[in-house]
Amino acid sequence: MASRLMFARRLMMSVPGVACARFAWSEEEPYQHKITGVDIVRIHHLSELGFASKRVSNRRSFGYAKFIGANECVLGDIVLREAAEPTTLKAYMRAGPRATLHFDPSETRVAIVTCGGLCPGMNSIIKNLVTTLKGHYGVSKIYGIRGGYRGFTSVGWDAPLLLTEETVDAAHRQGGTILGTSRGGFDAEKIVEWLRAKRVDQLYVIGGDGTHRGAYKLSELCIEKGLNIAVAGIPKTIDNDIGVIDRSFGFMTAVSEAVRAISAARVEAECNAPNGVGVVKLMGRNAGFLAAYATLASQDVDLCLVPEVPIDLVGPGGVLNHIERVIDAKGHAVVVVAEGAGEELLGVSAVTDAGGNRQLPPVGEWLCDKIKDHFKHEGKEATLKYIDPSYMVRSVPADASDSYLCMTLAHASAHGAMAGYTGFTVGLVNNRTVMVPIPELAKASPRAMAAHGRTWERVVSITGQPASQNSLAKPLPGTTKI
Amino acid sequence: MASRLMFARRLMMSVPGVACARFAWSEEEPYQHKITGVDIVRIHHLSELGFASKRVSNRRSFGYAKFIGANECVLGDIVLREAAEPTTLKAYMRAGPRATLHFDPSETRVAIVTCGGLCPGMNSIIKNLVTTLKGHYGVSKIYGIRGGYRGFTSVGWDAPLLLTEETVDAAHRQGGTILGTSRGGFDAEKIVEWLRAKRVDQLYVIGGDGTHRGAYKLSELCIEKGLNIAVAGIPKTIDNDIGVIDRSFGFMTAVSEAVRAISAARVEAECNAPNGVGVVKLMGRNAGFLAAYATLASQDVDLCLVPEVPIDLVGPGGVLNHIERVIDAKGHAVVVVAEGAGEELLGVSAVTDAGGNRQLPPVGEWLCDKIKDHFKHEGKEATLKYIDPSYMVRSVPADASDSYLCMTLAHASAHGAMAGYTGFTVGLVNNRTVMVPIPELAKASPRAMAAHGRTWERVVSITGQPASQNSLAKPLPGTTKI
Amino acid sequence: MASRLMFARRLMMSVPGVACARFAWSEEEPYQHKITGVDIVRIHHLSELGFASKRVSNRRSFGYAKFIGANECVLGDIVLREAAEPTTLKAYMRAGPRATLHFDPSETRVAIVTCGGLCPGMNSIIKNLVTTLKGHYGVSKIYGIRGGYRGFTSVGWDAPLLLTEETVDAAHRQGGTILGTSRGGFDAEKIVEWLRAKRVDQLYVIGGDGTHRGAYKLSELCIEKGLNIAVAGIPKTIDNDIGVIDRSFGFMTAVSEAVRAISAARVEAECNAPNGVGVVKLMGRNAGFLAAYATLASQDVDLCLVPEVPIDLVGPGGVLNHIERVIDAKGHAVVVVAEGAGEELLGVSAVTDAGGNRQLPPVGEWLCDKIKDHFKHEGKEATLKYIDPSYMVRSVPADASDSYLCMTLAHASAHGAMAGYTGFTVGLVNNRTVMVPIPELAKASPRAMAAHGRTWERVVSITGQPASQNSLAKPLPGTTKI
Amino acid sequence: MASRLMFARRLMMSVPGVACARFAWSEEEPYQHKITGVDIVRIHHLSELGFASKRVSNRRSFGYAKFIGANECVLGDIVLREAAEPTTLKAYMRAGPRATLHFDPSETRVAIVTCGGLCPGMNSIIKNLVTTLKGHYGVSKIYGIRGGYRGFTSVGWDAPLLLTEETVDAAHRQGGTILGTSRGGFDAEKIVEWLRAKRVDQLYVIGGDGTHRGAYKLSELCIEKGLNIAVAGIPKTIDNDIGVIDRSFGFMTAVSEAVRAISAARVEAECNAPNGVGVVKLMGRNAGFLAAYATLASQDVDLCLVPEVPIDLVGPGGVLNHIERVIDAKGHAVVVVAEGAGEELLGVSAVTDAGGNRQLPPVGEWLCDKIKDHFKHEGKEATLKYIDPSYMVRSVPADASDSYLCMTLAHASAHGAMAGYTGFTVGLVNNRTVMVPIPELAKASPRAMAAHGRTWERVVSITGQPASQNSLAKPLPGTTKI
Repeated sequence: MASRLMFARRLMMSVPGVACARFAWSEEEPYQHKITGVDIVRIHHLSELGFASKRVSNRRSFGYAKFIGANECVLGDIVLREAAEPTTLKAYMRAGPRATLHFDPSETRVAIVTCGGLCPGMNSIIKNLVTTLKGHYGVSKIYGIRGGYRGFTSVGWDAPLLLTEETVDAAHRQGGTILGTSRGGFDAEKIVEWLRAKRVDQLYVIGGDGTHRGAYKLSELCIEKGLNIAVAGIPKTIDNDIGVIDRSFGFMTAVSEAVRAISAARVEAECNAPNGVGVVKLMGRNAGFLAAYATLASQDVDLCLVPEVPIDLVGPGGVLNHIERVIDAKGHAVVVVAEGAGEELLGVSAVTDAGGNRQLPPVGEWLCDKIKDHFKHEGKEATLKYIDPSYMVRSVPADASDSYLCMTLAHASAHGAMAGYTGFTVGLVNNRTVMVPIPELAKASPRAMAAHGRTWERVVSITGQPASQNSLAKPLPGTTKI
Repeated sequence: MASRLMFARRLMMSVPGVACARFAWSEEEPYQHKITGVDIVRIHHLSELGFASKRVSNRRSFGYAKFIGANECVLGDIVLREAAEPTTLKAYMRAGPRATLHFDPSETRVAIVTCGGLCPGMNSIIKNLVTTLKGHYGVSKIYGIRGGYRGFTSVGWDAPLLLTEETVDAAHRQGGTILGTSRGGFDAEKIVEWLRAKRVDQLYVIGGDGTHRGAYKLSELCIEKGLNIAVAGIPKTIDNDIGVIDRSFGFMTAVSEAVRAISAARVEAECNAPNGVGVVKLMGRNAGFLAAYATLASQDVDLCLVPEVPIDLVGPGGVLNHIERVIDAKGHAVVVVAEGAGEELLGVSAVTDAGGNRQLPPVGEWLCDKIKDHFKHEGKEATLKYIDPSYMVRSVPADASDSYLCMTLAHASAHGAMAGYTGFTVGLVNNRTVMVPIPELAKASPRAMAAHGRTWERVVSITGQPASQNSLAKPLPGTTKI
Repeated sequence: MASRLMFARRLMMSVPGVACARFAWSEEEPYQHKITGVDIVRIHHLSELGFASKRVSNRRSFGYAKFIGANECVLGDIVLREAAEPTTLKAYMRAGPRATLHFDPSETRVAIVTCGGLCPGMNSIIKNLVTTLKGHYGVSKIYGIRGGYRGFTSVGWDAPLLLTEETVDAAHRQGGTILGTSRGGFDAEKIVEWLRAKRVDQLYVIGGDGTHRGAYKLSELCIEKGLNIAVAGIPKTIDNDIGVIDRSFGFMTAVSEAVRAISAARVEAECNAPNGVGVVKLMGRNAGFLAAYATLASQDVDLCLVPEVPIDLVGPGGVLNHIERVIDAKGHAVVVVAEGAGEELLGVSAVTDAGGNRQLPPVGEWLCDKIKDHFKHEGKEATLKYIDPSYMVRSVPADASDSYLCMTLAHASAHGAMAGYTGFTVGLVNNRTVMVPIPELAKASPRAMAAHGRTWERVVSITGQPASQNSLAKPLPGTTKI
Repeated sequence: MASRLMFARRLMMSVPGVACARFAWSEEEPYQHKITGVDIVRIHHLSELGFASKRVSNRRSFGYAKFIGANECVLGDIVLREAAEPTTLKAYMRAGPRATLHFDPSETRVAIVTCGGLCPGMNSIIKNLVTTLKGHYGVSKIYGIRGGYRGFTSVGWDAPLLLTEETVDAAHRQGGTILGTSRGGFDAEKIVEWLRAKRVDQLYVIGGDGTHRGAYKLSELCIEKGLNIAVAGIPKTIDNDIGVIDRSFGFMTAVSEAVRAISAARVEAECNAPNGVGVVKLMGRNAGFLAAYATLASQDVDLCLVPEVPIDLVGPGGVLNHIERVIDAKGHAVVVVAEGAGEELLGVSAVTDAGGNRQLPPVGEWLCDKIKDHFKHEGKEATLKYIDPSYMVRSVPADASDSYLCMTLAHASAHGAMAGYTGFTVGLVNNRTVMVPIPELAKASPRAMAAHGRTWERVVSITGQPASQNSLAKPLPGTTKI
């Protein structure tokens, strides 16, 4: 007791007034993590590739008190594990305004294109790109390419728009993208030719990992053809399955909408006697992040099935018995299933769509049938209600949190391209905006949820579903999307 | 050109197929950040303070595949600036389940208390504490203290509740706190006596920096009295003015609601002729984060006034002329003002409330009068609409994003206390959940927005308001709240 | 001109000050509608059926200034058409508190049951029944029957609840019904036996037309068995297909939710190139009111298909060509289809569910296929997005408007039963609450939308869809649901 | 018993199968209401005033199966009270398309103006006027007058717009009015001169009772000047204080938003210890409909104060004791107060605004002070939270229900003006759309809630507040607004 009191007293004495100062711990530090250095993941700069720079001061267009230096970076590996080897930390280049611009804003022409499926916040990105580039840098012209990559070769009513601050004034309050989007239609030669012909200096590409691979090809082709053009990406995915970054814009908005569907399923399950079961199918072809986060945010789910973890259907530790147990205990159950779950049981279709995505088996209906059969076999009634909110989760405008994120991403992107960087994309890494070389991001995408990771452990903890679901992780099927 | 093409080709050759591999940069690395070591900010552990530990294996209660080690940590200083000196990185202890528990769950008694003003997500925290502690660890008893610190000494109808999973089942779908809350009423001796009398092993305190200072005093007093009790905090602030952490729970939900009020002000300003001005007052006594983030998320604000930056009212670079210019350009203007702004012009009242907060001057009405006077003086009409959403921004349930955050914080807190840590709080640092000694957090709180920081620069950029607002930052007035 | 001015002047002279008084029209009234009398549609009163009445004054329980008299009524036929024959007007008994109660509140026992599918507002009805019966009349006991009619014979965990003001305090803020519901399970003899055994005096039945037919059988059986029991219904239908009444509670809330789905479909259609088509399937087996009202409220629909009007698929005036024309004009199209539409093309399944409802053909998927085939055949691309919000439209709490309606209906029902009326239901007729004999309502239900009526004409007007859709109305298929 | 059974049996025999047919009641009808005739409240028709009609068939523009005849009407007095004298029923002219048009659409020019304060649905009205007039009738030109009546005399940037279907395409999804609005600025001579100069044939005026009085003056002046112009009104009031009609558009949307504020107040009151009181101030200068309906829809209010009923502050039956009793019983209380309440205690200011509205005393703050003083005097603490949502209740878009209503009103208005009616307004009467002469509506406006009526009785019943509040109704102060 004495030592305890002494310790406490020492602790308090060291803290005059309210105990707020950093307190000393103990004589010997028990452990020391060793860092051997920092490895910055660098991105291309047009002048380093030999292209002429206008070297315009940024202070003219931007009143910033301080600019980000070329070596300012954000550490990427920030969790230091027990007893790890001495390690070199990876770091990403910090996004933000640079003191010197590669392009002269008053002569700069810009193109923006949105590709792939809809995602909340696309219009916020577009609006913020335009207000920053036009309103602050004062670029001379902004083309809005319509309908995705195929819009570059369009000649009809859907030819590129000219975007101004007026055009985008109310854009952020609508879902979708005011430019339109599409899958496929990528033709690098034609696109670069269009950029050359229109004397475009910067191309902003909002899209998924496939779209980014295309964007990187465009940046390479521009370099090869000697075109002094910056290509910048902004990662978009409703599935949150793009690697490196903390989370993609619009994802949490989609989770909110998914929670609405789960809430409907819960009410139906609770109220419909006897033995109500509510089943919700959510997006997520290869990655179950949407299903998992909606489960965690709603707190009302008893079973969550994702592509990353094989479905254990029958047997004591199986899904069907779990549902039955839940219903025996509280009278109803709520199930969330990602559209890509259960391929190991249902098989995979060889049919693919325009974006190269394989057609998925109807796991929602299949699961409903299995549950009904199980209860019938057990001689019990079950009242099943199935909800598939599908596109309702992605067509809404960004919520406040995602609007803020979109703003930071658009600014990061514009600052980087104006400074002369190319072949990069932007993202939130450890809650900071950074610039990442597209290949680094593409290599890590699509990512899947770790079957033994914290998120899945939290899902198992919240739902109480059999941990054996956790036992055998599926390898992520390779996908190639553009 | 040749070198450029060579570079590009080398780059592409190194990337067979789709260019996804990490690419080599250049022969000589131009710069190397130097790290001399890692300094872990440690927290108290009851056994290290000499208290007896039950040393129960956690695998019994939690099926976790891997537990967090004692030295596992998350780096805190992750932005490396240009030409910095060799640096020792600060790190925080990673939150999460530990392999060995200090307390035997089956004998553990727990108390939870919520203090201070309402904040979205308090009920999510309570629910997740209960489901984790009761549902997973299987603790024997959970007291819910009613009405804040003063509830410990209550003997009437508002005496502590016993919380079960059933009690909290629907709590997360309501705003506020099912336990009730209050300001003041802190009496360390009486509270510790109550904990001792009820044989409580763990106390969870949800509140602001003042409440945390109280919680730390409780942990010290327990140590002094030889009580083997873990005290854990969870930081709550509607103003997001608590230091160290990325953001506090409920803040983005409050921003969403604030954006609703701004949206109403915008519609009123746009539609009411002539010269519509919409003014919205938002919470924020010492820190303007809510006003700033709502401004950035809404994208519809022309002027944002916060406590951290003095108001420049008249003159060419002043606020009133800015509003007039905006109206001349587009016919209407939207203004957001934090309740604590303008003290340098309005003066400070000496009156304080039960929580020790000084009474604020009515900056919203004052600003409206100044705008009306200015327009009258200029011989112009102005149609002013004033909105004060006040408590409407904080009494809603947590949105999906904050619900997720609350879940991670509650789990982090429960894991830490069960493992025997005390005098700590939890939070998101660099997007990871960590445990922080309360004095470290208290020292950094209340924090204010940096007048030259990125957030304020973004506000100036989005609103277009005079950068001269930026010129003279106010020092943060000292506050002492419990 | 002279006469005109004279007229105008006379008109103004007759109106001193601001012209507000009722103005005289012309010398000879051109037309006079003739009313020969009023025919009140009366409902049973237990004392008129020979049962003993307690004849308690209502002033004790209710401080009402004026009570509704036995002959006070609301006219039902209020549109007088051109050149009609002299007519007798139908009238309904006005709902509201009566001066004399048939039952002595202090001895009265009550049972409440909810049947059939969910509908927004069921909990508002329950709450208002309880607060009126318990809080104002002071009845002695209220049973909440669980899980619909089958709950009367339940003996397990789902046996009837005792409802108090505390039990229902927060009920109105949740979707669904706190009592639970089910289809089928009607057994008149057993239910009446239960009412007799529990000495229940009043039964409140919330359900659809089938449920009401059951309720009327219960009232007949009570009469036959000499049981002095009042049976009151409150009509519930998500399809708004119950006759006599203006609209059923919860319907407009469901329309709001349906508009959300349409909004998602519109965003998808607008943004997905090329030729985006958004298809939304809404509830509505026999009546397309939900599809029609959602179309009119959203203002964004180009084609609306309902069960009442046969689908004209191909040909110049057909649906497919209409969609193509819309897309040619504005680039995208939005389609709403009621689940019961198109039976004349898809055929009807003989399979029925527990409630006697025939299984419907999958008209949504079928329509999507037809559209895709049409565009393929025309050598055009089309990007189709299909949304089925299903139960999401009905599981939400009542909005403010429906909450108000639920309150008026619950009060009307309680006042009627306390006064001794039986075999009646309540509803809004011409914006007034009335009591209607159940057979009158059952006879008119399920109702369908008139294919030449104002609502459908409005749909055709708003969507611009081919009026030929209007040409051939289908007869409503007979249905018998309990 | 025998007669009872016989009756029941006869009743069932008369109903083969399910008992659905209208059943006979008893031998002698106990009572017969007597109707002596129908008195149609007629409106002006331009041709009857001597103006030349184009007499164009409507079938060309509108494919309606049936048109509304000149004598088709909707009964206005539909509640027949006990023992009333033989009565002549008032009836209104049914709105809807007429077979013959007074104007030739292809030559018709139209102006639309919105006046007074904002109200949800104004944009829905504008959109539906434009789509009907332009899209269906095919009128040649639609002027959108900007900023209310004063916009007719504007010559600058706010000169009238030309409205097309494209201009209004997304208008209904925004709050406010795309035309802008203002108070005052009415100059009949100048407006009629503008109409004449621009050769406008129809003027649509959306506004309150004051605006309608102005519109009627315009119609009279047009007649006097021999201008063949139809003037049509659409009643707008956020207070629902316009007579004759069931309810005004946007009102229920405003109630929904008001319920949000009440919900916030309830959460604050429930959670803030000790003795939480939430006070919400709502709009309602002369009529407390918004406060009353929000009280009834939210079901969470313990006291509702309106202008129509004097406030009984102290004494046993007073407001303050009621609040104290409620808090003693359940720990917290929620209060709603209309801005115009309490003038009998606070006095009336002589200051008026541009629209002629007297400045109101700050009843919300006053009430909060009185409650605090009362509790202090009783030696109790009270935690008071005050919310004034102000413009937030009226700046939102119309909800689904009000969108539908706006559509019907806009169509009714357009059909009436095209047919040649003038000096009329439209509204929902007994759930049917009718045309009403403006003087008839103006005479009945502003209306107030009846202090002994059903709505107030319901408020007293739901809140449990002292019925003595009901004892002395205030006379409605006369107001003159334009």
